[in-house]
Amino acid sequence: MALEPVLSHIDDALPAALDRLKEVLRIQSISTDPAYKANCDAAADWLVADLKSFGVEAEKRPTPGHPMVVGHIDGPGPHLLFYGHYDVQPVDPLELWNSDPFDPQIEDTNQGPVIRGRGASDDKGQLMTFVEACRAYKSVHGSLPCKITFFFEGEEESGSPSLIPFMKENAAELSADLALICDTSMVAPGVPSIASQLRGMLKDEFTIHGPRIDLHSGHYGGPGLNPLKVLGQVIASFHDDTGRVAVEGFYDGVQEVPDEILRQWENCGFDEAAYLNSVGYTRPHGEEGYSTLVQQWARPTLEINGIWGGYQGAGSKTVIPAEAHCKLTCRLVGDMEPEALRRNLRAHVEAQLPVDARVVWNNDLDGSKAAVMNIARPEFEKARGALSEEWNREAVFSGMGGSIPIAGFFKDILGLDAMLIGFAQEDDAIHSPNEKYNVESFHKGMRSWARVLDALSK
Amino acid sequence: MALEPVLSHIDDALPAALDRLKEVLRIQSISTDPAYKANCDAAADWLVADLKSFGVEAEKRPTPGHPMVVGHIDGPGPHLLFYGHYDVQPVDPLELWNSDPFDPQIEDTNQGPVIRGRGASDDKGQLMTFVEACRAYKSVHGSLPCKITFFFEGEEESGSPSLIPFMKENAAELSADLALICDTSMVAPGVPSIASQLRGMLKDEFTIHGPRIDLHSGHYGGPGLNPLKVLGQVIASFHDDTGRVAVEGFYDGVQEVPDEILRQWENCGFDEAAYLNSVGYTRPHGEEGYSTLVQQWARPTLEINGIWGGYQGAGSKTVIPAEAHCKLTCRLVGDMEPEALRRNLRAHVEAQLPVDARVVWNNDLDGSKAAVMNIARPEFEKARGALSEEWNREAVFSGMGGSIPIAGFFKDILGLDAMLIGFAQEDDAIHSPNEKYNVESFHKGMRSWARVLDALSK
Repeated sequence: MALEPVLSHIDDALPAALDRLKEVLRIQSISTDPAYKANCDAAADWLVADLKSFGVEAEKRPTPGHPMVVGHIDGPGPHLLFYGHYDVQPVDPLELWNSDPFDPQIEDTNQGPVIRGRGASDDKGQLMTFVEACRAYKSVHGSLPCKITFFFEGEEESGSPSLIPFMKENAAELSADLALICDTSMVAPGVPSIASQLRGMLKDEFTIHGPRIDLHSGHYGGPGLNPLKVLGQVIASFHDDTGRVAVEGFYDGVQEVPDEILRQWENCGFDEAAYLNSVGYTRPHGEEGYSTLVQQWARPTLEINGIWGGYQGAGSKTVIPAEAHCKLTCRLVGDMEPEALRRNLRAHVEAQLPVDARVVWNNDLDGSKAAVMNIARPEFEKARGALSEEWNREAVFSGMGGSIPIAGFFKDILGLDAMLIGFAQEDDAIHSPNEKYNVESFHKGMRSWARVLDALSK
Repeated sequence: MALEPVLSHIDDALPAALDRLKEVLRIQSISTDPAYKANCDAAADWLVADLKSFGVEAEKRPTPGHPMVVGHIDGPGPHLLFYGHYDVQPVDPLELWNSDPFDPQIEDTNQGPVIRGRGASDDKGQLMTFVEACRAYKSVHGSLPCKITFFFEGEEESGSPSLIPFMKENAAELSADLALICDTSMVAPGVPSIASQLRGMLKDEFTIHGPRIDLHSGHYGGPGLNPLKVLGQVIASFHDDTGRVAVEGFYDGVQEVPDEILRQWENCGFDEAAYLNSVGYTRPHGEEGYSTLVQQWARPTLEINGIWGGYQGAGSKTVIPAEAHCKLTCRLVGDMEPEALRRNLRAHVEAQLPVDARVVWNNDLDGSKAAVMNIARPEFEKARGALSEEWNREAVFSGMGGSIPIAGFFKDILGLDAMLIGFAQEDDAIHSPNEKYNVESFHKGMRSWARVLDALSK
């Protein structure tokens, strides 16, 4: 099927596509708040109707929470599963919005026009780039170049409680050759990006116990073992002087970034100084010898997220407290095994403790492996080529410092590799007041998907 | 004046003395709670009347807070100022008391009889040991062997806001040769003790700032500087592996305990193992090479009293917080200068900080020097001899881990050396439910003061 008329159609139909996006943005589908249950349902209904409007066999599918939307449309090429989510984050603090979060408007900015409103970027705007690309194909050619399954959830912003059970129960229906996900950012403005690796996560929490009860530092100050001091020593023991994590076995399963990928990252337009300066840093503080991007995309971390113990009120209290608390998370890369890491981490902490101190662990916190995309599959280079053409610059396989569990679920439950292509900008303010999506992201996003479908069908 | 008849009179009059103690214990003189203002006033009135009943010229003296009681009685010997306080701690949690805290009762225990009630030990019972000794002298001999000024305050348990102004305004009236204070414990049951050194205190608090705002550990985990990690490193830097404080200049002004005092402490009946085990320790955790008592009485400390930062709720939050907080106190001994120590401490913390971290100090917290009693004065050996006779075992010059500012005030404002003799037991539960005072402490306390007055008058 010819690509050029599809791209022209997308250009001509941009105002109509923006009108449709505004329609779905007006639906207040805040998934975490039960008060918006009917709104979530309405968003699912809207999507079902929209998919049906260009020939997709689509259905709203009930779950114990908000419904899924599943749609199928045939085509000659490979079978692709496209995932997105129609639910959005809450809008508070409402007073920080400059306009009604659910009355989307096109606004001119120094980045060009943007569409502003809750969900404009995360994820309704991104989701619709793919839907619109499919619609354009159907309009121009009467059919699609690939077989597509649409799979939209309404609980992504509230922990996806129904996702895994639904995928397990409907594994046959959701089977495909490759999953596509549009919920990520570009590494820099104008730089098309395929997220090729997401870090995993290990969560843990411990309490160091010292004396049986809180003690008075007049009576016991000196001979008394202070768990706050012990916690400080434990925290200090986690890293060596070069920023490397000093837990034995921590780096098991970590690979260095291949030169080819490293070259892409070095040329991806990421402005290291601006990124660091924006939060008050003059240099990166992770492992020596790695750039900021590598530290954040391809190196594991051990991060203290919370500490507390003893007196925290005004003034002073001469207490040696009985307990000190610490929450931490590790970011995982490569083949790091969360539970093996947990054992190593805990053994490390136990080994730091002096006589008369003991540690109690919270056993309710989970872990997930890093997701490393299977970029050896030919679809990845095809898609990269398609994106490079659309954006007139080489697309990059980018890393991501965060964790998106959905990619792992596709692999584990459905045996599906996932390809993450997104057009969001770092400054889209997702989860924050005044969320926006650049009209360029929307427009070129639609065109990008048209090109990707074309490339994958060949 | 003959001592023996005074001691006999004290023995005979014990029931009457206990009745008087019960009377004053029934007065709910909780100084920190404005609801008990009239009760504090009533306690002062009771003391004025009681002092007058045996010929002391006593007056209630107003202050902006609760009144002082000042009384004078003449005698041939040296002029002694006796200090005590008539106010008590609140009684909550009331449900943990086995009897009404303000309905004192004599109770038989395996330590012999005790009088139970709020203030029985701290400080009404202790205060009355001295008053009763004076009364007995007056009954037997018609006069006292020394000139005495009584000085009782009603705000000791609520920060003594009126004490320093009152002492300054009435310095001439409060002048004497030596101050006596009865508000301390014996180092072990049956071991008479003169507190010869109290530790001072330096309070400080700081906040370590890292990034300008809280960061997401997916985005910045790796290159991001985490103030919680920096705080851990700062805390770990405070002590070396032997438990010694590693702050430069920290030990300036610290002297080793003289052998003669050390010998007294080694034989004072202090049960180190029981003291440590009672709170869950198997060994002392302070500076290596010093016993538990020396660590707690005669060595300075740097103690972390509170830490907080980042996420402290349920579950996990992937945050790199902007701030980490730490409260600490140092216990001072010898000639350590609080403000010099503060400068050294702060310089130490600043020196630990990596690039992009900064520290902000709370400048509202004070410090006080250690109080080292002038035991070279002959009165101290006289009193030690008197106590040794009464208790049939050598009295000791004991240290105290805590800080009692009043001794320093007597020195600074009135130029008075203070001698602290007390008969409380470690298990008296002062400030706690079911406070008690051993009847033996009360009885032998009265006899002890009679002997001390006798010894000092010679």
